Amino acid sequence: MSLTPGRPRVVIIGCGFGGIEAVRALAPADVEITLVDRTNHHLFQPLLYQVATAGLSAPAISGPIRHILRKEMQRGNLTILLGEVTRIDAAARSVELDSGKDRIAYDHLIVAAGATHSYFGHDDWAQHAPGLKTLADAFRIRRRVLMAFERAERQRDLERRKACLTFAVVGAGPTGVEMAGMLAEIAHHTLPDEYRHIDSRRARVVLIEGGPRVLGGFTEKLSAKALAQLQTLGVEVLVDAKVSSIDAEGLDYEGPQGAQRINTHTVVWAAGVAASPLGRALADSCGCALDRAGRVVVDADLAVPGHPEISVVGDLAAAKSHPKKGPPTPVPGVSPAAKQMGRTAARNLLKRLRGETTQAFRYVDYGALATIGRHSAIAMVDVPMLGRVQFSGPAAWLFWLFVHIYFLIGFRNRLVVLSDWAWAYFSFERQARVVADPENPPRASS
Amino acid sequence: MSLTPGRPRVVIIGCGFGGIEAVRALAPADVEITLVDRTNHHLFQPLLYQVATAGLSAPAISGPIRHILRKEMQRGNLTILLGEVTRIDAAARSVELDSGKDRIAYDHLIVAAGATHSYFGHDDWAQHAPGLKTLADAFRIRRRVLMAFERAERQRDLERRKACLTFAVVGAGPTGVEMAGMLAEIAHHTLPDEYRHIDSRRARVVLIEGGPRVLGGFTEKLSAKALAQLQTLGVEVLVDAKVSSIDAEGLDYEGPQGAQRINTHTVVWAAGVAASPLGRALADSCGCALDRAGRVVVDADLAVPGHPEISVVGDLAAAKSHPKKGPPTPVPGVSPAAKQMGRTAARNLLKRLRGETTQAFRYVDYGALATIGRHSAIAMVDVPMLGRVQFSGPAAWLFWLFVHIYFLIGFRNRLVVLSDWAWAYFSFERQARVVADPENPPRASS
Repeated sequence: MSLTPGRPRVVIIGCGFGGIEAVRALAPADVEITLVDRTNHHLFQPLLYQVATAGLSAPAISGPIRHILRKEMQRGNLTILLGEVTRIDAAARSVELDSGKDRIAYDHLIVAAGATHSYFGHDDWAQHAPGLKTLADAFRIRRRVLMAFERAERQRDLERRKACLTFAVVGAGPTGVEMAGMLAEIAHHTLPDEYRHIDSRRARVVLIEGGPRVLGGFTEKLSAKALAQLQTLGVEVLVDAKVSSIDAEGLDYEGPQGAQRINTHTVVWAAGVAASPLGRALADSCGCALDRAGRVVVDADLAVPGHPEISVVGDLAAAKSHPKKGPPTPVPGVSPAAKQMGRTAARNLLKRLRGETTQAFRYVDYGALATIGRHSAIAMVDVPMLGRVQFSGPAAWLFWLFVHIYFLIGFRNRLVVLSDWAWAYFSFERQARVVADPENPPRASS
Repeated sequence: MSLTPGRPRVVIIGCGFGGIEAVRALAPADVEITLVDRTNHHLFQPLLYQVATAGLSAPAISGPIRHILRKEMQRGNLTILLGEVTRIDAAARSVELDSGKDRIAYDHLIVAAGATHSYFGHDDWAQHAPGLKTLADAFRIRRRVLMAFERAERQRDLERRKACLTFAVVGAGPTGVEMAGMLAEIAHHTLPDEYRHIDSRRARVVLIEGGPRVLGGFTEKLSAKALAQLQTLGVEVLVDAKVSSIDAEGLDYEGPQGAQRINTHTVVWAAGVAASPLGRALADSCGCALDRAGRVVVDADLAVPGHPEISVVGDLAAAKSHPKKGPPTPVPGVSPAAKQMGRTAARNLLKRLRGETTQAFRYVDYGALATIGRHSAIAMVDVPMLGRVQFSGPAAWLFWLFVHIYFLIGFRNRLVVLSDWAWAYFSFERQARVVADPENPPRASS
């Protein structure tokens, strides 16, 4: 296609599921696209916990953005920039990169900056309880988990050794459940016989949930199945337990039995999600409303009220789905929703350029899945003719494997993950148990 | 076997090629072994440059020590500790871990702590020109190389863009040559068409060697072949060029044409190797002699003079090989030599326990290999009946591939590297082009 001089400039912030889909939908059109991200890779976040638990290497679940979008690149209307958007100027229609180093003008803006962790106002917990959103987060957790066993092996004080061998996961959503299940599997299946002074099977894995049940997004029946599967794996599950403080030596919580303490050096935070700070930056610039989680409240067509040239998609959007029948419903923070929003925002942008009416966003919900460990998972899936079907156990686990391989971006990643999983399944080994940097930044010595 | 109470305690420092071999040779004996390393993994250093250039992921060329030594572990006389030896007390026969946190007594000590980079007294160069000895080093170089292309894409000033697209490798030994060849391959084959504002093919890769030729350890004929292969790949080779300063914007060198400057933001240091600081620690404790590179001068049987209970092996040892005929010759700093020394030190230790005479170390040299890039390598190999055979080109390259796969530790690593190489060969892709952390430590935001 020929590129029209002065064609509309579209800036897309973020290359997660929403951003990538928006680029793909816009690339064939006569627009000039600039995609900005602060990393050089797209990350398949649903499997990030497997990097954190040493089951997969980082390149298996991520790919360079430039490589993923190489076909779109060849059309000649896409620029990819590595940089961090630090300000949005809605009046001047520009975004600022890296605190003013660069400024990019836009005619249309799609913000797909995603979410980060929320410590509910206790930011000091972050140093003791890392969350899991980026590859750097995953490496940090992997290091802490593996180093805890190493410290236990060297520790002679039995109480301290017990604390080294206690792992706490805060939050029993899908990520928390997956983390806890994997930690139990490492302790019980991967590490036994590799230590001389400790028995890794005696490690304690505690999953702490503030609500009344694990995997609250699923039905009560599936949630109960998941609980049973976790307990079979040896995970201690505490529900209705609210964490009140976290320090270097452990955490305190308020449970049904009152205030309790767990001595542990390894806490993983899987509890709170907050919108990217870019939501606040956008609100500062154009006065749009944010919800309690800091997400941008958008119109039915995903545009920012009063700013049809700006759309927000993915975890940063407080969006509603507009079904054919019935009232609008909130959109969950899952990857299929982000992808669908990215596509809808791109299509609505093109409709606007053609002077057509935009479409309200409608989320197509295919179901939900969560895995707990080897042979254990729960699933609720929409099946044509049958409606919503619930199942659990090995069948759900196989289904989970299939879906995750299928949706991985890149043929090579699919092969790598498939072969890594097959190897891990039969050998109980975890291939990525390597810590590049035990604790400190590396030194150059003379 | 039954373990004798009060059996001899052997401490081995370092789990590189020398340390691992020593453990394997000692494990069947009636000794109590403690292996100490500051990382949790054994690293196949000959392929580390492929992690630095994004061709392989870290787990492909490394493995957890505990997993590698799991069979030895099952004999019940091996303890593995993660920690850094900070002092050796030869009089008290103990080593100190992590500045006094722990102290381990020994009856016999094998020091296999290896080597680090030497900046020839210019330690300030380290920040601008990272070397390549650890996985953390490899990740740092990978990040700098990939980020240089990203910065170039955003840079509008043409001179500065040129500096971003200039890569300098200092030192034309095997590592330097392999790095330079891979950088040229990335620029010319992997990245083209992935950028919009730059042509990665115009990147400049400069290899700077202080001596008169590349790969000085090989014959002049092979060295000339390697030079020709490097030039075919598009590498600029400067010989007789001595680097006089390195800063954030580039480097200065004295060459045949006098003082020159190269503007570059990416310098890789492959020039100087120095013994681990533990050589100095040992000398401080027992007064043994160090050579100019800081290596411990050892007896013919690899023991420290005057301290038959201490042996030094691998890159930390200034050892001599004692052939059947002719005078002793220096042992080169290569992995087969480290392995052979580890085995000899272990056997001599057992001989001492039995009251037998120890053996002088004899290095069996099977030859040397270096690769330059796709289809290019040079080799000199000892073939029975034929003596030393020299060859280069595709045959040497295939031989290089075979040898490196063969010597990788772990069946799984062999499979992974083989399949990664096959994929890279046919697709020109490099699978590990992912930077977990572009520049700064990750933040937790609320």
